[in-house]
Amino acid sequence: MAGVDLDKHRSMHRFVLSLIESLNKELGFEVSGIGGYTASVKYSGLNLSLHVDGVGTKTIVLQKLGKMRVAGWDCVAMNVNDVVCDGAKPIAVVDYIAMPKADEETFKDIVEGVVDAARVARIAVLGGETAILPDLANGVDVVCTVLAVRDSSFSNTTHIGDVVIGVSSWGLHANGYSLVRKVLESRNIGYSSTIDGINLADELAKPVAIYSNLVRDLIDQRLVTSVAHITGGAFTKLKRVTPPNVNMVLDMPKPPKIFEAIMELGNISVDEMYRVFNMGVGLILTASKENIHDIENIIKSHNFEFYELGRVVDGSGKVVLNTVYGKTIVF
Amino acid sequence: MAGVDLDKHRSMHRFVLSLIESLNKELGFEVSGIGGYTASVKYSGLNLSLHVDGVGTKTIVLQKLGKMRVAGWDCVAMNVNDVVCDGAKPIAVVDYIAMPKADEETFKDIVEGVVDAARVARIAVLGGETAILPDLANGVDVVCTVLAVRDSSFSNTTHIGDVVIGVSSWGLHANGYSLVRKVLESRNIGYSSTIDGINLADELAKPVAIYSNLVRDLIDQRLVTSVAHITGGAFTKLKRVTPPNVNMVLDMPKPPKIFEAIMELGNISVDEMYRVFNMGVGLILTASKENIHDIENIIKSHNFEFYELGRVVDGSGKVVLNTVYGKTIVF
Repeated sequence: MAGVDLDKHRSMHRFVLSLIESLNKELGFEVSGIGGYTASVKYSGLNLSLHVDGVGTKTIVLQKLGKMRVAGWDCVAMNVNDVVCDGAKPIAVVDYIAMPKADEETFKDIVEGVVDAARVARIAVLGGETAILPDLANGVDVVCTVLAVRDSSFSNTTHIGDVVIGVSSWGLHANGYSLVRKVLESRNIGYSSTIDGINLADELAKPVAIYSNLVRDLIDQRLVTSVAHITGGAFTKLKRVTPPNVNMVLDMPKPPKIFEAIMELGNISVDEMYRVFNMGVGLILTASKENIHDIENIIKSHNFEFYELGRVVDGSGKVVLNTVYGKTIVF
Repeated sequence: MAGVDLDKHRSMHRFVLSLIESLNKELGFEVSGIGGYTASVKYSGLNLSLHVDGVGTKTIVLQKLGKMRVAGWDCVAMNVNDVVCDGAKPIAVVDYIAMPKADEETFKDIVEGVVDAARVARIAVLGGETAILPDLANGVDVVCTVLAVRDSSFSNTTHIGDVVIGVSSWGLHANGYSLVRKVLESRNIGYSSTIDGINLADELAKPVAIYSNLVRDLIDQRLVTSVAHITGGAFTKLKRVTPPNVNMVLDMPKPPKIFEAIMELGNISVDEMYRVFNMGVGLILTASKENIHDIENIIKSHNFEFYELGRVVDGSGKVVLNTVYGKTIVF
């Protein structure tokens, strides 16, 4: 894989969890959700969550394309999409921008994007920090932290017999850009080229879809049993909502052309594609079968495509993806 | 100045404020404190604040000295020190670490430092994000976001007749490292050298003092009228707590040797020194004269030095620093 070593990441992850869990216990804090999408601390009767995530390598591409407003948008979108998966309501955001040199135009673009997305996600913007770090930053790093309140008893777990539903993405979102850059650079393909009739500049600068309003509607109406935002690690994220006694089996639709173009150009395995990219499906829900038409209507009313993808069956905590490439992937 | 162009910074700052203030109004959020140390949004009867800040260039020095645990500590310390100045109680923190390559040892050091500082500041750690960004990050960027609850009616404004009190710093804290690096590199002085009897490695790796418990004690007991954390911009930060009808006049003590060594080596003006460095005083308080002995006792009980520095007098919003170098600086 380009860019990110997930195994090393996971071992780091485990180390952090044990360290912070003992600290929180020692200080007498009631903290839940450590290791999930977002952790929260109980304070004055509220479950207050913080979630931080950055746009990563996509900013390199966006800057070359003159689209840094999308970086600001994405940074909010990724965070609100994550926090709603655990039944939290996003309330406010702060941003952090690291730049190699003061660049007012880029800064304005990013903040305008943050505000655009905050407007759609209906959250307050509480300011932020811009650090000019000539010796630390090679490019522009755009990071947001979202404050959310977990106000529901949503357990985010699938049950045997549930249907699996997919919600369309707006393209690559903000994942897999290290791999995309590697593929394009190794072929000497510029970010503004056209390949297989695809305008790369358009595809690479598409923003991350904001799913938070949709997910809040579905959870408020108690229509879904689990919600997974398909981000870093792509469909491996489904492991989080799959308990050890079930398997989640999905028949994945044919992905949009951009994903197939990247796969072919980079000679990337089907397995890797589904570990890195959302493949056209940015959100996966599970629900009782009787709710499926209500869910379809709500998804469409939020202007997303609805896909019925499969079932949750008796099993052993596995996620089984049947792809259109004749290959079945098991996580 | 090395590293940071504060004027450009300020113009960006104004742009952000107007944009986010209109968004928050449009969405119906009750937001206060935009432009101060930390802004908060009213939610369910609580004033919830988010504050983000990073360690910046100091991490380059800390990494060379093998002291990245201090980076984790500092990142928490800087944030909790800021939020308490506005009368907020810090509750929880998340960290964001950007690295050019996965480096488990450095990662562990940083997280241990975060946990060390969270223990002292008595806040929960709610996880974080580590991004491996080979093309974006040259060094390790360490950033924290703190959630705080503004639970007091503390107005953070000085009054005519108040005394001005200083609290000792633990050295450079995390400000001025771009300038320090420039000075040392231009003289070919390594970070582990000894100059004028000063062990540079020790001085440069000193952590940021955590003032949050001290400040909470002083505010809870209503002993102070204003609190200023001397960070980026150093003593220009006092402008924030100085209303337009007063002047704050301070007789600054002789700074610790490290500051004078940097000033001499770099041939830096006295004016610039007080705009960049804390000069041995990391926190400035104002209070009614009758509280001064209580305040002195509390500061000493938190193991800091107490300095009586001056008075708040009739004036025009100016901060007047009388230095031991025969030069008076006016901000």
